[in-house]
Amino acid sequence: MSIKHFDQIPATSIPTGEGVSRKMLIGPDEGPNFAMRAFKIEAGGSMPMHTNDVEHQQYVLGGRAKVVIGGETHEVSKGDVVFIPALVPHNYEPIGDEPFEFICVVPNLPDETKLVK
Amino acid sequence: MSIKHFDQIPATSIPTGEGVSRKMLIGPDEGPNFAMRAFKIEAGGSMPMHTNDVEHQQYVLGGRAKVVIGGETHEVSKGDVVFIPALVPHNYEPIGDEPFEFICVVPNLPDETKLVK
Repeated sequence: MSIKHFDQIPATSIPTGEGVSRKMLIGPDEGPNFAMRAFKIEAGGSMPMHTNDVEHQQYVLGGRAKVVIGGETHEVSKGDVVFIPALVPHNYEPIGDEPFEFICVVPNLPDETKLVK
Repeated sequence: MSIKHFDQIPATSIPTGEGVSRKMLIGPDEGPNFAMRAFKIEAGGSMPMHTNDVEHQQYVLGGRAKVVIGGETHEVSKGDVVFIPALVPHNYEPIGDEPFEFICVVPNLPDETKLVK
């Protein structure tokens, strides 16, 4: 078992995006079936349109963003719960001056982030 | 894909505990590998010592609680990330006047909550 505080977990820059970083809250080394991560996208940053080979289960911790999922545009903010099935194109663009932060849980299965033009 | 707001998801009482309710944020009908739930334990309530057949990956949304996991007592609050392996006895007892709220992700595998005396 483990207990860690969010603020003590190191963040890693994600070069696929602009101003995007990730914290591995509970990694595949610890969880046998899935991993809990947290992403932060700075104001003015973005994560471009891409697909993953695995589904995402997300909970928005703070900030606001325009997200396009499967060709539909939505605005999400704190408390929104988002399910993105495997292989569905999606992107993120923060709105306003605050960073956009969300939890994102993925299964421990092979995954590749593929940019969509 | 789906987007829902936390406040719009109905809560179900969990009779194993006192003052415990659960929201199914993303259920096994939607997620192929795991389910994202949120639990709320009212001030003065508790969830008694029990085991589950599956692991828990948790993120504390608010409030404070005394939790005993595998015989060790901890205090947790907003931003704490908790991993409880399968079959490890655990309980929850809120501290103070606020409800204790946390996200809890579990795999889509058979599970039984067994009380520990």
